[in-house]
Amino acid sequence: MFTLYYAPDTCALASHIALIEAGAPYELKRIDFATSEQRQGHYLAINPKARVPAMATPRGILTETPAMLAFIAQSFPAARLAPLDDPFAFAQVQAFNSYLCSTLHVAHAHRMRGHRWVDDEAAIGAMQKKVPESVGACYDLIERHILRGPWVMGERYTISDPYLFTLAQWMEDDGVDPARFPGVAVHRRRVAERSAVKKAIAEERA
Amino acid sequence: MFTLYYAPDTCALASHIALIEAGAPYELKRIDFATSEQRQGHYLAINPKARVPAMATPRGILTETPAMLAFIAQSFPAARLAPLDDPFAFAQVQAFNSYLCSTLHVAHAHRMRGHRWVDDEAAIGAMQKKVPESVGACYDLIERHILRGPWVMGERYTISDPYLFTLAQWMEDDGVDPARFPGVAVHRRRVAERSAVKKAIAEERA
Repeated sequence: MFTLYYAPDTCALASHIALIEAGAPYELKRIDFATSEQRQGHYLAINPKARVPAMATPRGILTETPAMLAFIAQSFPAARLAPLDDPFAFAQVQAFNSYLCSTLHVAHAHRMRGHRWVDDEAAIGAMQKKVPESVGACYDLIERHILRGPWVMGERYTISDPYLFTLAQWMEDDGVDPARFPGVAVHRRRVAERSAVKKAIAEERA
Repeated sequence: MFTLYYAPDTCALASHIALIEAGAPYELKRIDFATSEQRQGHYLAINPKARVPAMATPRGILTETPAMLAFIAQSFPAARLAPLDDPFAFAQVQAFNSYLCSTLHVAHAHRMRGHRWVDDEAAIGAMQKKVPESVGACYDLIERHILRGPWVMGERYTISDPYLFTLAQWMEDDGVDPARFPGVAVHRRRVAERSAVKKAIAEERA
């Protein structure tokens, strides 16, 4: 059994979808950001980073979305969520997921989590102002250089798809017009139609 | 043959060390940041992200340090640079590398690459001011919760070690006193003694 610690509207959705796609046994534990539960002792004992997602497994806790997604794919190979027998193709999946984690998600985080990097209120405002540009630049790179279609890596659905889908939920709030990136927009609609995705979203909203 | 595109004093050093530890055939191509070569057409054709590292392989280009490190480990399994037969242990390596990439390196980047996230000069200064705190918090987490010793993952040297070593080179310039983190400091000295590490550093300084 896997226990996924999540909060709605966070990148935890990517791992949640992957668990369902993999056919993994899982349960959800919602962490209440409104009461800063992620910074309370009982959660810090699970994840001292004070963030979601975290996933309890029979072997211990895992964090970091790219690592969790690869772990889910490797633990349930029959679901074929990553090209496990091809190190180069696997590395392409991982490179994309790493880019989402370290560049796109980070650009986005400057809108609502600016206090991670500055204390000054005026600087927080300056960060927020640039988010449409910095997030938009990430989607431009994805659209022009990475996204192959119909899925991120081409004909095969992989763990890169729910991850892109999850972050792309935030586009409009980040001030990026989805119409600028028709490939990403079509991908988002395609992923949204999958039953695993509908189930994950319904569970997080319940 | 692998061609590693690098610049000195960047995170490309981690992949450079890993290539040597793996016994991989490689050549180096230095990208001149002083002339902004990373933004010139011939390099953008290799890596449209305009960053280093990038690595040309017989199958194509790879980017993103965590993906490149895992690829090197998987491509040269005899070097035993990652626990390839244990998805959970592999995920722990990957989670650590993902944390370095998306949190520690990002905190550090607010000192010299602030223009990625703001245009305002005062905000750049506000970012730089917080770097000792935000980078220090990462080392605190690593020291207290992750680093097992003698290597990051315990008894076995993995791709997490050259990566931590590489970023830890920047500690003093980030305003973080290594004496606060004796475990990280000892690890840094231990990695520095490896012949592959000495070779990589000498090649980048040549």
